[in-house]
Amino acid sequence: MKTYTAHVTVTLRRSILDVQGKTVEHALHSLHMPSLTNVRIGKHIEVDVMAPDSETAQQLIDDACQKLLTNPVMEDYSISITESSTGVTA
Amino acid sequence: MKTYTAHVTVTLRRSILDVQGKTVEHALHSLHMPSLTNVRIGKHIEVDVMAPDSETAQQLIDDACQKLLTNPVMEDYSISITESSTGVTA
Repeated sequence: MKTYTAHVTVTLRRSILDVQGKTVEHALHSLHMPSLTNVRIGKHIEVDVMAPDSETAQQLIDDACQKLLTNPVMEDYSISITESSTGVTA
Repeated sequence: MKTYTAHVTVTLRRSILDVQGKTVEHALHSLHMPSLTNVRIGKHIEVDVMAPDSETAQQLIDDACQKLLTNPVMEDYSISITESSTGVTA
């Protein structure tokens, strides 16, 4: 078994109004930063996965995203997996 | 002026207990996914930046992170900037 680290980025679908993002955008403009626009705010999730190979790790994370981490009706997600440097365990 | 898209990832510092992450980890284990551990949850912010070059864009975003987007006492952040495909404007 190896340890992988997965980075999951969860964002609201483009078609859905991001109220939190709009609020932050207004705050940025109030702070005299008018060149920053289209703010969208999502979640970044970091998880360690024990799996025999990266395909299985990807599958485990995808399963977790579908069942718990994301709302597939309103959100999109992307997964990137890297092998942990601490590496191989029994 | 060009349009850049910045992706900012904000995470709690390693030394700070991530209560939200711990809760999600327990939930994953309750859903029979014991191979997923060390869950840490952060924010992912996407912003469009109008700037003459990517260095200025980076500086503008860094400024926004310091002033509004992050809490430098408790959080770390990383910025990645890409040039928007919609590209050059007047």
